[in-house]
Amino acid sequence: VALTTLLRLFHPEPPEAPGIHATAAVGEGARVDPTASVGPHAVIEAGAVIGARSRVGALSFVGAGVVIGEDVVLYPRVVVRDGVRVGHRVIVHPGAVLGADGFGYAFDGAAHRKIPQVGGLRVGDDVEIGANATIDRGTLGDTVIGRGSKIDNLVQVGHNCQVGEHVILVAQVGVSGSCRIGSRAVLAGQVGIVDHVTVGEGAILTAQSGVAGDVPAGEVWSGSPSRPSMETRRIWAAESMLPDLIRKVRALEKRVRELEEKRGA
Amino acid sequence: VALTTLLRLFHPEPPEAPGIHATAAVGEGARVDPTASVGPHAVIEAGAVIGARSRVGALSFVGAGVVIGEDVVLYPRVVVRDGVRVGHRVIVHPGAVLGADGFGYAFDGAAHRKIPQVGGLRVGDDVEIGANATIDRGTLGDTVIGRGSKIDNLVQVGHNCQVGEHVILVAQVGVSGSCRIGSRAVLAGQVGIVDHVTVGEGAILTAQSGVAGDVPAGEVWSGSPSRPSMETRRIWAAESMLPDLIRKVRALEKRVRELEEKRGA
Amino acid sequence: VALTTLLRLFHPEPPEAPGIHATAAVGEGARVDPTASVGPHAVIEAGAVIGARSRVGALSFVGAGVVIGEDVVLYPRVVVRDGVRVGHRVIVHPGAVLGADGFGYAFDGAAHRKIPQVGGLRVGDDVEIGANATIDRGTLGDTVIGRGSKIDNLVQVGHNCQVGEHVILVAQVGVSGSCRIGSRAVLAGQVGIVDHVTVGEGAILTAQSGVAGDVPAGEVWSGSPSRPSMETRRIWAAESMLPDLIRKVRALEKRVRELEEKRGA
Repeated sequence: VALTTLLRLFHPEPPEAPGIHATAAVGEGARVDPTASVGPHAVIEAGAVIGARSRVGALSFVGAGVVIGEDVVLYPRVVVRDGVRVGHRVIVHPGAVLGADGFGYAFDGAAHRKIPQVGGLRVGDDVEIGANATIDRGTLGDTVIGRGSKIDNLVQVGHNCQVGEHVILVAQVGVSGSCRIGSRAVLAGQVGIVDHVTVGEGAILTAQSGVAGDVPAGEVWSGSPSRPSMETRRIWAAESMLPDLIRKVRALEKRVRELEEKRGA
Repeated sequence: VALTTLLRLFHPEPPEAPGIHATAAVGEGARVDPTASVGPHAVIEAGAVIGARSRVGALSFVGAGVVIGEDVVLYPRVVVRDGVRVGHRVIVHPGAVLGADGFGYAFDGAAHRKIPQVGGLRVGDDVEIGANATIDRGTLGDTVIGRGSKIDNLVQVGHNCQVGEHVILVAQVGVSGSCRIGSRAVLAGQVGIVDHVTVGEGAILTAQSGVAGDVPAGEVWSGSPSRPSMETRRIWAAESMLPDLIRKVRALEKRVRELEEKRGA
Repeated sequence: VALTTLLRLFHPEPPEAPGIHATAAVGEGARVDPTASVGPHAVIEAGAVIGARSRVGALSFVGAGVVIGEDVVLYPRVVVRDGVRVGHRVIVHPGAVLGADGFGYAFDGAAHRKIPQVGGLRVGDDVEIGANATIDRGTLGDTVIGRGSKIDNLVQVGHNCQVGEHVILVAQVGVSGSCRIGSRAVLAGQVGIVDHVTVGEGAILTAQSGVAGDVPAGEVWSGSPSRPSMETRRIWAAESMLPDLIRKVRALEKRVRELEEKRGA
């Protein structure tokens, strides 16, 4: 944290002049705070609200009815689809897509019929969302990203997920629909979670874990399929001995057969 | 499906006024149907064709010679590179890239030389493509996405893949070049497929499967390396017993040695 | 390579007329070479430099102080954030994000505090970067992508990574922060590498490998957790026999018990 303070002291954020760039397209009834800035070729649709001191980067898209809080940074080329609500001091990196349709279909025997995705997305205060990450809107209710959570590049969060506060989702994590991720949980890189799973508060999933069932609060799990890390580590160590074990069992079978034959003789 | 109908009834798609936004850049010879809409800052290159009632979202790019069918929705910030052909009623979510170069190089002893990617991409009717997904164009022939297939966020489909009809590719799936995915196959989240593999019709690959060889039609496979799910499940169950098994074999070796010694005595 | 030459002969790159499109937004003090081209709705910020014959695609963003070399192709909708330096003959596909903030926080007991990411990113000559890939800037020093390296779609390279020359990173690879990838190494699809790992020169990691420790130069490693491929292959083969092995050990235990009982009798 000392380093953080020092770095910020010596590398202050460049001040962004407030105001709307001449090339930005701002729709009817959109309200951009006079202290906010809107970059070149940004698009702000009808009825959207941009809070005080927030920055909408070049080439970003803010959909109809979106509410963006104060001191938010949308880097260039962010998409925030219609109706999404973003808190204060949120940072969104280039290419992230907030509020796209979730992946929901019903197979009618001949084709996959789209289930309309009419829910929303709420992003809490102090959240950070990485480059090219995708957070889907809910089918009916809202997808929620809790206050202070940090989401890395290329992460996918499915529709109707409830992500708690101060959660860490490292790069390329995939969270399927309707999952609950408890506060302060940490999902390391490339972890995948199937739908409707609950990860308890403070749980840690190590890199590439594949999670198909609930993970208790405070536990550390690993592997695919994921198990408590102590157990997974024992399995990984044992795996190395497996080819040798097969040879040993073959040898034992031969020796036992010989003992049996002598016994029978 | 009843839910689908109800949701659509109560949440109708907002009507999009037809016409080309004043800030859109439309190239020479591009033909936009009068009933279609083109959003703010969209770019449509020379010779592209946009069909009836289709919507090109804000900040989207439609390359030279692209053909977009009728009733297509390109959400904001979609890229469709030159020459790609998109059918009717296709939905493409923000950030998706259709028709980028495939990943093809020849190592000449000193450096990787790029193999020009001069093929195309054809997307069938009723396909849906998720946010930030990438579907590469072919090297020589076309990459093909069959009618009715649904592709989730952050999926990668390599050059020259032939994806059948009504296929489901869940988030973060990676399909390498020249694969054939049979109709109605389902690839769950984060599945990876090496190049030139055939996945049979109706086959199911569970989440995080790693597929290095052909998968027969109608089968369910799991694991990395992927095997029939029944077999994989047995392996996963057995793995849990592996550390215990090693102890048992050590104990057996001791007991057999004792029997042998007594026998020999 | 013969194929490469032939394909290029019959499918020459379309010539791009030099010049800055009327709708592009070019900041103060930016220098665009007269032989370079800047597409519709591209944004070039103050002080950026675009070299001879380079093409900045439509809807692309080039940040303040960026230096782009000669004969570079930025396809439409690329983001190059402030201060990034790109060499000659580099190709960047749509949606790629160069120089976003790395994922760095310090937990202060209550919340994750952002560590400012004030380093840079240097991309060597002849590098190619795929669609929707993300390469983060350094925390203090630079992230470096060496000359001739080829990076596929949806790849993530973390802050302060040093990627050598002629490296291949296939689709959806994730390289965590501060890794060193030796020259001519090949990371196949969906490989994940934890932070601070060194992959030696010419090493090969097969698809979906999960790497938590250093990989020696020239070796081929597989699996998650990753091990030398010979060892991993033996484990995978042995796994298939594991359920049978458990039955065999149970049978052996019974037979040994019988021998012991008879012996004792």
